[in-house]
Amino acid sequence: MNKEYQNVKVIGFDADDTLWVNETYFRDAESEFAKLLNRFETENKIDQELFKMEMKNLPVYGYGVKGFVLSMVEMALELSNNTVSNTTIEKIIEIGKEMINKPVELLDGVEEVLDELSKKYRLIVATKGDLLDQERKLQKSGLLDYFHHIEVLSDKKEDNYSRLLKHLDIKPSAFLMIGNSLKSDILPLVTLGAKAIHIPFHTTWAHEKVLVNTNESKSYKTLKNLREVISILN
Amino acid sequence: MNKEYQNVKVIGFDADDTLWVNETYFRDAESEFAKLLNRFETENKIDQELFKMEMKNLPVYGYGVKGFVLSMVEMALELSNNTVSNTTIEKIIEIGKEMINKPVELLDGVEEVLDELSKKYRLIVATKGDLLDQERKLQKSGLLDYFHHIEVLSDKKEDNYSRLLKHLDIKPSAFLMIGNSLKSDILPLVTLGAKAIHIPFHTTWAHEKVLVNTNESKSYKTLKNLREVISILN
Repeated sequence: MNKEYQNVKVIGFDADDTLWVNETYFRDAESEFAKLLNRFETENKIDQELFKMEMKNLPVYGYGVKGFVLSMVEMALELSNNTVSNTTIEKIIEIGKEMINKPVELLDGVEEVLDELSKKYRLIVATKGDLLDQERKLQKSGLLDYFHHIEVLSDKKEDNYSRLLKHLDIKPSAFLMIGNSLKSDILPLVTLGAKAIHIPFHTTWAHEKVLVNTNESKSYKTLKNLREVISILN
Repeated sequence: MNKEYQNVKVIGFDADDTLWVNETYFRDAESEFAKLLNRFETENKIDQELFKMEMKNLPVYGYGVKGFVLSMVEMALELSNNTVSNTTIEKIIEIGKEMINKPVELLDGVEEVLDELSKKYRLIVATKGDLLDQERKLQKSGLLDYFHHIEVLSDKKEDNYSRLLKHLDIKPSAFLMIGNSLKSDILPLVTLGAKAIHIPFHTTWAHEKVLVNTNESKSYKTLKNLREVISILN
């Protein structure tokens, strides 16, 4: 085992795009939304405007599909100067329900890695988004038994992780977080003195993009695939 | 102190309509919604149909304002046979944002009781609804410091409480739940062998209404006011 991780007792896994596919479904929904409204604006512009609307509404709605759908409805009204058809609004609501009801598509190696690590570590899920949605995905995933419990955070900033560590009653150095978002899963943990392993997903939401300086990049590890975690931690 | 409660170590408080006003805002929103659509149906009928729509969508959206707003939008489309104006949809979205941004109105005696009980017990909030929404309300309430932590549950059934007790690592008899909903805060706890104190709020959401048999009603206490809890637990 890599010495750096010898004090680790609890491993936190991000869920969306770390354990299962998520961002891809949002990208698909955005593109469907842009097509629905392409008589009012170019699809590219609609995409940009929708992102702005989501950012404006984020403090009110938080993360997750429901807030995303409400932002799409509001955007449709605004983009069309209140001339959008009811059928289009109906379709937007439908896009949201379909997203919520999507089956869970596990990423490569997830089950194998959890099975191995759960023998030695306490595993938890630390995710943001909608509580019901995340619990449901965990249920559908079949991975529930590997985890001690699931922590759904309203955001993934230093403060939220600080409370999580207090709640887990462990020192930062005993906690390792594994996730795909530098901004949400890696940098806040590094600042707190916890360990972090970054496993990029091919698609990243604009809101999660962040620039990393050289000092920061030395303090966490980046792996290509979740499977590589085993050789480091075993 | 009442002997029945001598093993209690952790007290869980429901939040909405136990610590602060909530249901009243939903009632107001429903009545505003019915007025917006009263050229399509009687306000009474709109009220009933909205409730049915909420129940239909509950497994998809869960509890909280965002799901409620999405149900209102869907209901407006359906009730009007897709002839509702964009302005009305806009107003529905606005009703939701106003609900989310409402100030927190504490119920009578809350601060005094929490101050007293926090000296002797570990207090937690156990609520359902939207995670961000509930965290924000707790923040606004100024009550944060009284609580060890906040547990937002996707539902309040026996299973959810069972997991909560496991997570708290205590026996059911060491847990007392205080809340306004018989269905969500009292009966599941009684079944698990935990303690429960019911403090009714003047308004109850139809979904929370339940019939109680005599045996069950013997196994929990009903108080008129939160303040009475002190004389029982001190």
